[in-house]
Amino acid sequence: MNALANGWFSEIQNELWPGQCFSLKVKNILHQEKSKYQNIQIFETETYGTCLALDGIIQCTLRDEFSYQEMISFLPLCSHPNPEKVLIVGGGDGGVAREVVKHPNVKEVHQVEIDERVVELSKTFLPEMASGFKSPKMKLIIGDGFDFMKTHKNEFDVIITDSSDPVGPAVSLFNESYFDLMKTSLRDGGIICSQGGSFWLDCTHVKKIVAGCQKHFPNVSFAVTSIPSYPCGHIGFVIGSLNRNTDLRKPAKIFSSETIDEIGLKYYSSEIHTAAFALPRWVQKQLFE
Amino acid sequence: MNALANGWFSEIQNELWPGQCFSLKVKNILHQEKSKYQNIQIFETETYGTCLALDGIIQCTLRDEFSYQEMISFLPLCSHPNPEKVLIVGGGDGGVAREVVKHPNVKEVHQVEIDERVVELSKTFLPEMASGFKSPKMKLIIGDGFDFMKTHKNEFDVIITDSSDPVGPAVSLFNESYFDLMKTSLRDGGIICSQGGSFWLDCTHVKKIVAGCQKHFPNVSFAVTSIPSYPCGHIGFVIGSLNRNTDLRKPAKIFSSETIDEIGLKYYSSEIHTAAFALPRWVQKQLFE
Repeated sequence: MNALANGWFSEIQNELWPGQCFSLKVKNILHQEKSKYQNIQIFETETYGTCLALDGIIQCTLRDEFSYQEMISFLPLCSHPNPEKVLIVGGGDGGVAREVVKHPNVKEVHQVEIDERVVELSKTFLPEMASGFKSPKMKLIIGDGFDFMKTHKNEFDVIITDSSDPVGPAVSLFNESYFDLMKTSLRDGGIICSQGGSFWLDCTHVKKIVAGCQKHFPNVSFAVTSIPSYPCGHIGFVIGSLNRNTDLRKPAKIFSSETIDEIGLKYYSSEIHTAAFALPRWVQKQLFE
Repeated sequence: MNALANGWFSEIQNELWPGQCFSLKVKNILHQEKSKYQNIQIFETETYGTCLALDGIIQCTLRDEFSYQEMISFLPLCSHPNPEKVLIVGGGDGGVAREVVKHPNVKEVHQVEIDERVVELSKTFLPEMASGFKSPKMKLIIGDGFDFMKTHKNEFDVIITDSSDPVGPAVSLFNESYFDLMKTSLRDGGIICSQGGSFWLDCTHVKKIVAGCQKHFPNVSFAVTSIPSYPCGHIGFVIGSLNRNTDLRKPAKIFSSETIDEIGLKYYSSEIHTAAFALPRWVQKQLFE
């Protein structure tokens, strides 16, 4: 844990982002421990609010987390005509749950998180995020997403995978077989959305995830959102729909600005939804042409 | 220049991005000097190619510079029905010039850069960027953009201000009076585009620039592009048109994918043009509602 030195937290060097490093000035270390699955660090930063890091990688800061949580939730939810039953895999901090339950059509949310300690520590140190767990729509299961889906077939309208990066415990959530498994847990017309990395970091890696999804879903797109505390300042989402006729760029559910404000979204809007799918020319070519 | 230490270049700490820091691993320092206006550093990085820093702030890296250069050029150029005569203020590395001359309607480009050393060093160390200066369409003037515009009235279709950040020599390029001056140098229906900071860093600062532009232009928008080596991984553009009926989000000139590839654009496309203007809900509210 020597990434916390001289009053700064510097993200760990690894093969995912060689030669670059993002650092945040730390005001106060709130908690550090090694859980069964990973190193957990929670600290208060000077200018980004509370920050959660797993295995030396920033998972969220209070300053910008809403961009990621809203987009990974509302891109698939609003691409579905009636997302009543939702599964979240991962997302132990509670941020995705907090967003998913805001959607007026959502009736029931199951969430499977492998590391109980992330949930518990978020309830203590990140109550703004863990608030999602309190919703009566929520059912939280501590366990393995793979095992859960193997026994829950044909059940969900939307599956959101809020994983850490493809090193450590989350590596299997980027494999092709994982997309196959999700497909069997979806109802007809179901939609999945997974964290999909950065095309600036490694477009070949993104293409591999997209191709894995394309093997099992007839309709696959890639979208991005801007988020300063993630490597390269953005993050992508792989979105797959079982409905081949859906244009994922066009929300099936369009919220007015008033509704957006009312349900408490700060980042997402129908305009942002469409824009998120517009990829730089070189990325569009590499991923889809 | 102690930002270059232990084989890493860390961007200087300042009031523009307190509490955060982006660093690049350095392979080789190519050149360092203090010009009449600023500290100039050029180095080869491990994974971002050659990098130019002015006063400790990254101006461009070869890995991602095309995002910024293409977008600050083609957003205004493609919003104009016939951008024949263009003025570039700043842009001493040549990257914007390289992009502007690619537009088939552009006949003549004047560029006014204050620091001759940036131009000369870019020709030596960043030939991929300085290549723009070689175009027969180009006329490079070493001098002050303010002085130049005071004697060039009613002359340009598009004015692009490719400045460094609002600390040091570029600070006046963000003032309201600068927008007034640009207006007088434009022909009827002219369009300006200026580097406009980051809404993640300081939305109040962005709003101030937008408001300064709105005082003199009837039609003002704000757009963004993704660029990992700039603070927060993105940068904004303030775009003002003298034509109040133009919808800046819809390109007046639409290039097919074939043309985009042919003229050598890697980032810009008509879809990216429109998407660049979609702002997160909270930013849209703060800037325009």
